[in-house]
Amino acid sequence: MSSSDTNGTVPRPVNPGKVAARYRQEVREEIDELGKRPHIVLFLTGDDTDSVTYAEYTTQACDDVGIEHELRHVARLDLEAAITDANADPSIHGIFVYWPVFNNEQDAYIRNQVDYRKDIEGLGLYWTRKLYANDRHAIDGDTDKKAILPCTPLAIIKLLTEAGVYDTGVDKPIRGKQIVVFNRSEIVGRPLAVMLSNDGAVVHSFDIHGPLLFADAQPYEVDITREDALMNADIVITGVPNPNFERIDPAEIKAGAVCLNFSSSDNFYDNVTERASLYIPRVGPVTVAMCMRNALRLYKNFHEK
Amino acid sequence: MSSSDTNGTVPRPVNPGKVAARYRQEVREEIDELGKRPHIVLFLTGDDTDSVTYAEYTTQACDDVGIEHELRHVARLDLEAAITDANADPSIHGIFVYWPVFNNEQDAYIRNQVDYRKDIEGLGLYWTRKLYANDRHAIDGDTDKKAILPCTPLAIIKLLTEAGVYDTGVDKPIRGKQIVVFNRSEIVGRPLAVMLSNDGAVVHSFDIHGPLLFADAQPYEVDITREDALMNADIVITGVPNPNFERIDPAEIKAGAVCLNFSSSDNFYDNVTERASLYIPRVGPVTVAMCMRNALRLYKNFHEK
Repeated sequence: MSSSDTNGTVPRPVNPGKVAARYRQEVREEIDELGKRPHIVLFLTGDDTDSVTYAEYTTQACDDVGIEHELRHVARLDLEAAITDANADPSIHGIFVYWPVFNNEQDAYIRNQVDYRKDIEGLGLYWTRKLYANDRHAIDGDTDKKAILPCTPLAIIKLLTEAGVYDTGVDKPIRGKQIVVFNRSEIVGRPLAVMLSNDGAVVHSFDIHGPLLFADAQPYEVDITREDALMNADIVITGVPNPNFERIDPAEIKAGAVCLNFSSSDNFYDNVTERASLYIPRVGPVTVAMCMRNALRLYKNFHEK
Repeated sequence: MSSSDTNGTVPRPVNPGKVAARYRQEVREEIDELGKRPHIVLFLTGDDTDSVTYAEYTTQACDDVGIEHELRHVARLDLEAAITDANADPSIHGIFVYWPVFNNEQDAYIRNQVDYRKDIEGLGLYWTRKLYANDRHAIDGDTDKKAILPCTPLAIIKLLTEAGVYDTGVDKPIRGKQIVVFNRSEIVGRPLAVMLSNDGAVVHSFDIHGPLLFADAQPYEVDITREDALMNADIVITGVPNPNFERIDPAEIKAGAVCLNFSSSDNFYDNVTERASLYIPRVGPVTVAMCMRNALRLYKNFHEK
């Protein structure tokens, strides 16, 4: 393993489980101070192993931080009505859905049925519009309440911060870094590229249709190959479930790069650490911790009084 | 060609161009009566032949009915800002976009950036929520103003009405008909299935993940093969751009069925009329006429005064 990144700084080793535990502790302490407990519902529509495991993991995290939770098993065709009911129920402060449900564009429709004041995942239009407009406030004109950010992009940024790649406390905490992101979905890749570029990075974002460049939170057309983008990237982030995606070989990456994968598919060759200064193979635990954090933030923003 | 459908009624031959011309004439007469002209913008982001041809066709239709129009060529990355500007411009009464733009889920995001009061295609959440809730009014509590329906599903229903399959003037104009729809996109297949079932039909809706049954505007899980669904269908509607879709053979359909294709791909074998009582191979001209109608309706609902 290389011992330093290309700027000469040595990234700190990162244990996603430990990072998650620290964020959960922060949430737990804040809930203890509040003296009140947010109450959320989690909707599970399928019985595939991944979703059930993720549901167990999430509900354990709720228990850990002191969030009251109900895991509701509903048929996918009943989900929209169940969300409508949960939106209308004042005793419910947050709503979480295990995806995919229909595994097509109907899922985006359903995501937008969640009331933004209960949208733990931060993926509905109310929050994504704020993100793309770089509006950091939950409510227009109220600077005290912070906006909700989507959990997985946020988790990735927290892990990069932990690695020392983000220089916290400055205006553009990742200025000058070249980043490649393989994924431009509306739920991770595009918001992530915008957030990273908003923090000063230059991001090449690839999907099956090709690359876009993000700088200062704006997208630009760009003509660059995967090879050329990877060769100069200080950070490489992948989340490609498509089995046709050609896994990344250490020979493709710049010596000392920080690599991170958020997909359940393994997008890097096992020997990635031959050239990478750090490889973070999963973000799941931190994603769940960010969900807890978002649930608490929704409670404080919209439901505490 | 079979001479009658399975209920013994003979569907009338249908010429989409003529049907479109009649609806355009209605719009033209109504605009003449108004004495004012709606003013719309049409956004074209690509230069592929299909989009350019469609743009020519749409602008000719605008000229024909008396709608003032501006075709704006914008880079795809500038589309969102261009829509925001058009939303804010009180001299613009309607907005139309030639799809696809990004050809991924970002297109759904952009669709929802169009102000619902200018959403000619009726595909944003404001209108689709009303459609799925069977709310026929454009504004809550105002029974004078009719809701906007998506253009292609509406065009298909107009063509079936022309064929005599819809019994206009009754409460459930297509009661008892069995329909198969191959397509369950959020822009055509799902709204179409809901609209048809709301009008009394029993609809088997297929996408790559399998079938759903729609009855009385509600979806139900169903276990049925393509073959069994087709065998009993009075009406077969296809819109599958996927080249792997196995085209429909006349042997698969019920004698006398009415068949309609709205995709630019040809989803039926050429000899479909050996068994079908009627085959409607395209809906495009009527879709455009419905856009004109929607543009006029938006003007009357939201901009006339």
